[in-house]
Amino acid sequence: MLKLCRRYLNWIQNSVFEGELTDVKLKELLHEAKQMMNEETDSIIVFKSRQEKWLDKMVVGKEKNKIDNIL
Amino acid sequence: MLKLCRRYLNWIQNSVFEGELTDVKLKELLHEAKQMMNEETDSIIVFKSRQEKWLDKMVVGKEKNKIDNIL
Repeated sequence: MLKLCRRYLNWIQNSVFEGELTDVKLKELLHEAKQMMNEETDSIIVFKSRQEKWLDKMVVGKEKNKIDNIL
Repeated sequence: MLKLCRRYLNWIQNSVFEGELTDVKLKELLHEAKQMMNEETDSIIVFKSRQEKWLDKMVVGKEKNKIDNIL
């Protein structure tokens, strides 16, 4: 799941990913994710903001190393 | 940390919480969180949307049981 999400998004913390996706790409990602998750027990929560400026991001503490995006 | 976050927010998944907070309450929460986290290794990422309608939420799979908010 981590590998899949990283193909589409940046991994920012534990099970949290962030990125810009078209609706088509999001559908692709969720389609693939559904095949590996158990929909009875697992969940994926998507927060969508249509415009980046509508969402403020604040980081306290250590930001994930850039290297984590490559591994 | 879980206990602290739950005093201010709803626990929606693993280390992810959601809720409406005033700026004062957010400051309080972060102040308390900083006292228990290691800022060299841990992180808290806050996404803020000024208006709820600017953020769409989509859940795939199982939503956390309401009971989780009480435990």
